[in-house]
Amino acid sequence: MTQKVRLGMVGGGQGAFIGAVHRHAIGMDGQYELVAGAFSRNTENNQQTAAQLGIESQRAYASWQEMLDTEAAMPAGQRIEAITIVTPNSTHVPVAIAAAKLGFHVMCEKPLGVTTAEAKELAEVLRTSNTLFALAHTYIGYPMVWQARHMVASGVIGQVRKILVEYPQGWLTELIEGDNKQAAWRTDPKESGASGCMGDIGTHAYNLAEFVSGHNIHRLSAMLNTVVEGRHLDDDGAAFFRTEQGASGTLIASQVCAGEENAPKVRVYGDKGGLMWTHAEPNSLVHMPHGAPKRILRAGSGMPELCDAANSLCRTPGGHPEGYLEAFANLYTLFAEHIRQQPRGEGMAAPGIEAGLRGMAFIDAMLASSAADSAWIDI
Amino acid sequence: MTQKVRLGMVGGGQGAFIGAVHRHAIGMDGQYELVAGAFSRNTENNQQTAAQLGIESQRAYASWQEMLDTEAAMPAGQRIEAITIVTPNSTHVPVAIAAAKLGFHVMCEKPLGVTTAEAKELAEVLRTSNTLFALAHTYIGYPMVWQARHMVASGVIGQVRKILVEYPQGWLTELIEGDNKQAAWRTDPKESGASGCMGDIGTHAYNLAEFVSGHNIHRLSAMLNTVVEGRHLDDDGAAFFRTEQGASGTLIASQVCAGEENAPKVRVYGDKGGLMWTHAEPNSLVHMPHGAPKRILRAGSGMPELCDAANSLCRTPGGHPEGYLEAFANLYTLFAEHIRQQPRGEGMAAPGIEAGLRGMAFIDAMLASSAADSAWIDI
Amino acid sequence: MTQKVRLGMVGGGQGAFIGAVHRHAIGMDGQYELVAGAFSRNTENNQQTAAQLGIESQRAYASWQEMLDTEAAMPAGQRIEAITIVTPNSTHVPVAIAAAKLGFHVMCEKPLGVTTAEAKELAEVLRTSNTLFALAHTYIGYPMVWQARHMVASGVIGQVRKILVEYPQGWLTELIEGDNKQAAWRTDPKESGASGCMGDIGTHAYNLAEFVSGHNIHRLSAMLNTVVEGRHLDDDGAAFFRTEQGASGTLIASQVCAGEENAPKVRVYGDKGGLMWTHAEPNSLVHMPHGAPKRILRAGSGMPELCDAANSLCRTPGGHPEGYLEAFANLYTLFAEHIRQQPRGEGMAAPGIEAGLRGMAFIDAMLASSAADSAWIDI
Amino acid sequence: MTQKVRLGMVGGGQGAFIGAVHRHAIGMDGQYELVAGAFSRNTENNQQTAAQLGIESQRAYASWQEMLDTEAAMPAGQRIEAITIVTPNSTHVPVAIAAAKLGFHVMCEKPLGVTTAEAKELAEVLRTSNTLFALAHTYIGYPMVWQARHMVASGVIGQVRKILVEYPQGWLTELIEGDNKQAAWRTDPKESGASGCMGDIGTHAYNLAEFVSGHNIHRLSAMLNTVVEGRHLDDDGAAFFRTEQGASGTLIASQVCAGEENAPKVRVYGDKGGLMWTHAEPNSLVHMPHGAPKRILRAGSGMPELCDAANSLCRTPGGHPEGYLEAFANLYTLFAEHIRQQPRGEGMAAPGIEAGLRGMAFIDAMLASSAADSAWIDI
Repeated sequence: MTQKVRLGMVGGGQGAFIGAVHRHAIGMDGQYELVAGAFSRNTENNQQTAAQLGIESQRAYASWQEMLDTEAAMPAGQRIEAITIVTPNSTHVPVAIAAAKLGFHVMCEKPLGVTTAEAKELAEVLRTSNTLFALAHTYIGYPMVWQARHMVASGVIGQVRKILVEYPQGWLTELIEGDNKQAAWRTDPKESGASGCMGDIGTHAYNLAEFVSGHNIHRLSAMLNTVVEGRHLDDDGAAFFRTEQGASGTLIASQVCAGEENAPKVRVYGDKGGLMWTHAEPNSLVHMPHGAPKRILRAGSGMPELCDAANSLCRTPGGHPEGYLEAFANLYTLFAEHIRQQPRGEGMAAPGIEAGLRGMAFIDAMLASSAADSAWIDI
Repeated sequence: MTQKVRLGMVGGGQGAFIGAVHRHAIGMDGQYELVAGAFSRNTENNQQTAAQLGIESQRAYASWQEMLDTEAAMPAGQRIEAITIVTPNSTHVPVAIAAAKLGFHVMCEKPLGVTTAEAKELAEVLRTSNTLFALAHTYIGYPMVWQARHMVASGVIGQVRKILVEYPQGWLTELIEGDNKQAAWRTDPKESGASGCMGDIGTHAYNLAEFVSGHNIHRLSAMLNTVVEGRHLDDDGAAFFRTEQGASGTLIASQVCAGEENAPKVRVYGDKGGLMWTHAEPNSLVHMPHGAPKRILRAGSGMPELCDAANSLCRTPGGHPEGYLEAFANLYTLFAEHIRQQPRGEGMAAPGIEAGLRGMAFIDAMLASSAADSAWIDI
Repeated sequence: MTQKVRLGMVGGGQGAFIGAVHRHAIGMDGQYELVAGAFSRNTENNQQTAAQLGIESQRAYASWQEMLDTEAAMPAGQRIEAITIVTPNSTHVPVAIAAAKLGFHVMCEKPLGVTTAEAKELAEVLRTSNTLFALAHTYIGYPMVWQARHMVASGVIGQVRKILVEYPQGWLTELIEGDNKQAAWRTDPKESGASGCMGDIGTHAYNLAEFVSGHNIHRLSAMLNTVVEGRHLDDDGAAFFRTEQGASGTLIASQVCAGEENAPKVRVYGDKGGLMWTHAEPNSLVHMPHGAPKRILRAGSGMPELCDAANSLCRTPGGHPEGYLEAFANLYTLFAEHIRQQPRGEGMAAPGIEAGLRGMAFIDAMLASSAADSAWIDI
Repeated sequence: MTQKVRLGMVGGGQGAFIGAVHRHAIGMDGQYELVAGAFSRNTENNQQTAAQLGIESQRAYASWQEMLDTEAAMPAGQRIEAITIVTPNSTHVPVAIAAAKLGFHVMCEKPLGVTTAEAKELAEVLRTSNTLFALAHTYIGYPMVWQARHMVASGVIGQVRKILVEYPQGWLTELIEGDNKQAAWRTDPKESGASGCMGDIGTHAYNLAEFVSGHNIHRLSAMLNTVVEGRHLDDDGAAFFRTEQGASGTLIASQVCAGEENAPKVRVYGDKGGLMWTHAEPNSLVHMPHGAPKRILRAGSGMPELCDAANSLCRTPGGHPEGYLEAFANLYTLFAEHIRQQPRGEGMAAPGIEAGLRGMAFIDAMLASSAADSAWIDI
């Protein structure tokens, strides 16, 4: 009988957005049992969150430190095996380092942290610990993103030349950080780090571009803007980039595209065709062969064009839309499989510390280039 | 501390499609604990399914009768409180009746059963028991379907005149029932009832049309076809219909629309505008006011146009696609709230016995009209 | 040096909708010279229309009879060679008969006329005259409709089993016939014939279904409605139908689908796949092979999948949208080629008298079936 | 009686792409009579083109110089009044200057020419001549592009902050310039000028961005690429830009996006909402108000939201797709109205010399910035 992975959560008290998302995802495949948490520094919130989740009161800890220490002292068959960090960026690395040192596996929200220095410190700790680390780059949880990567890797579109990635949002069109908790920490350098938009969604775009293309973006030229007066961090920007493998591309990320919801989109073009995936219709992948009609590949369709990875990340047949929570659940389930040492296949893992470090380097390069009048910078 | 509802499952052994769907949905909101099951008559399958789900071996029962009887004899705080029936149609009613008589709440796959007679028998049992009953009419779990219903009910499109509903699938284009378990029972009169396509997906279309429009379809004229040679039940058909409230409409359901996946679509037109919802893009509702531009209402957007029901059925903000499993989870969670006697609002419940009975009457009328050369028949 | 076809127009004075559409189409390919007209019984309108079009005042005739007689008496190299009839339905046949008897070719708006009897009379006249006749079934002017027909005919989707055609409009949602000239004649039995919606757009749907599928619809069961109180003709309806070749289908046409513009759509399914074409995106044809990804065939793309007919009906490469006026122009140009005895290829012609007669039979059958409580009627 | 404008064409012999496009557009509204041409330096092609178009043999001139001189010597009521230049870029300015000096109005393909110097020379000639000049920036012929401009100008989306424009094509994915006439001159610096992609389609994107936003792009940072080995000019590139009015944006143009057809797309975001128009669905304009549902404005719908300009540029009601040729025809008809001194309204004109000069400055700036490692350059 397979044991569920015993999990503790850091952050995610009532009123938080992403904590609830993680919990829906955690429950979906039955791989985890959420048994402990340090949900909020507010005692009432912390206890109520635990109660609502059916977690015993004594395992609703007043702080993440207390949780880690107390749980570490419990018997092996009882104590949590892993934690998930769903707090603002500034806490990610300290919590992850402490957890890893005590032997807990870590699932962590992105971006990895607030400075490259602390990120490297975590990487060093992970190198010498026996713990696993995963980063919640949600879009990598989508089956058709894996399908896109597979098709690029297997040469379907030929040699990659051009990568266009964009991530327009509109929710920060006004200066809402006074009233909106989500906006508040994301625009506060102390909690978010030196970049706002690029840290929050630019890293998603960057990660998606590299994951799908298989290329390493190694140079970029950037323009960052703080469009809304009174805001403390960038809320908009773009970059040109070049990859080690010889392609070029454009990355756009903005939180002031009024009227837009949340639709990252990636297009990759090679010398034999192109691919397009957008979060607005995540169960489809558009293949544009050069000189032949566009084809719409569909998640769950069971067609021979689909790769094993894409197939294994679907729960339902074609025509039964899966979405954001399923993508999240896929990352969690891939992580559980690694914890149980039963990965489903070669390379089938959630993004890890490497992706996190690249994301931090991307943020640094964006800031540096923008500050230098869009000069080209190595990542 | 809220207790999760202890649940037992009938059907859903390894290899079954819909059982796994139910389990993903059950886990998503943390309202249930799946603690027992009679997953398969095949002992090995039954035990392996239980093991995989972390269910104790002794609560993996050899038959649903055994499960109901054994669990009923257990202490109140331990025994299951509800069951979910995910078997072929012919078993629905017998299991539901037995469960209701023993005091278990019942979530049941649609259609309600194989004959109107047995359906009425179940209705009678439910009338006198203290148990709750819900039918898994999945599409009613979608927020924007509730939004559509709300907009019709509140007069946004004026007096309803025209209802167009369609449900094209292509998976039964060939005679696959020899090899495909899903196809086998759905085309076998003994397991599926007297209708194939109309029972399986026609009832969804009918239910969706009535739910959104708020009208009662009370007369119809039908054409049913068995398109694929050698098939034992209808795999295609259509109906004209009229409602008590004075509208007319057309219903199309087919399993031989080669190349189609699974995209029910409903359009309702009043004297002030129209509404369109399709499963192909379930997070949107298209409002077509007469004489003004189309508007795209979006699930999770938090806009003032959205009704409480639609808002409460979303887990994420606009632009984070939710889908089939979330719709399913919504039905389960609504049901759990009723079991815990904490419904979230007036009329907020999963479809129940009434919808089930109407579905059976619809099937009967479709068969009768088609047999009578498309004569108009009262439902 | 190719001579342009000298053309006279009947109807189409200032303020008429379809007359101007015809003129844009006539001018597009440079095949015609509009040199005469009986545009309006209103003398001022008639003369002004002529002046605006650069037509000599004396060839702006007070009546179509005068035009036909006067022109017939002119020298062969000067007189008109063909007429185009863009008046309400009741005038179509009388004008066409008179023109054919005098040796003028006729392009005529649809439907063919107001009764089957007069339609047959015209057919008889045409049989014995040397004149050509074409019917402005606009949708047959679209390249991708020909492509669809070609793919069906060449077996790409296998044996046709199912045809779904729909034509929803919303412009007659209110009783506007008092103020709106277009609505006035279309809802007046004297000008429009015994059917409103079915004559006006039902015939388009019927024609499209037969053209694409290559099947002959020979039996139908219909429900017609006059939804708007005070209207004199049907404004809504639907039919089931069967074809001689063994397929079945559904036809929906309505003018009270509030909020809809003008989007006929046809879907044809065989045992190997399906095809979908909709006027909402006329430059695409969606091919849905059974068991393989959907493909989007594009007008003008020059891809090997495209047939000669589709290619020859495009003026621009893929990605340069062509539309309604180009479709119209295609019918005119095909007609001009026949007048010049230089058809571009086997079967490449605008719809003719045969399509017109079938349309009239369709209207008759729809009315008869609806009056007989949806009884099945032979066409 | 309105006289049609007598027109002569330079270029557009058989086998040319854009010449035929111009002729379809010229014929559509009946405003022009094409009476002369210097279609090709190849005598046979020149004469055959004329014959096919019904142009008298003696007005098919061996060279544009001969046409201009001969026609200028003809009586005022006979000679051409205007010319249209549909040749490769290098000929635009010389022909236009000669024509303007002789008093002929000029419609000219874009970009204006091959160097800013010659463009300025033309501007100077035009300043002192009585002739009109228009540039065929086709996308400005679309009604919904005017609607977008109107909505921005009237404050519907608030203060403009962000402009995203892109123009991906895939037709130059391979080195086809050896065989493909269109590709050959566009990639030849002598005929095309110093830029390939930016001159050909980058100028369209730039023009569209400025036209819709009403902003002046005055600084940019660019990355240009020649992706295909052996090509002599850029075939891909992007720019960041800033406007005098304080917005920023991104421009992408590429001819090596394999599988793409021809879909320019412009998005403009203000502090109250956004607008999106794409050539892939040119009859729609998507309005995204901040905090309210997206609305789809439709050409020809006659709704009160539509401005006079948009309405006047439609020939058919909503739901009757108009496209590329109609956009072209709109430019021609606007030009004819100015020639006849009857413009339809304030500001209603085809793009002129000013747009042409800005386009040339854009090309220069793109080349300069790219050569300077993406340094910011004033336009």
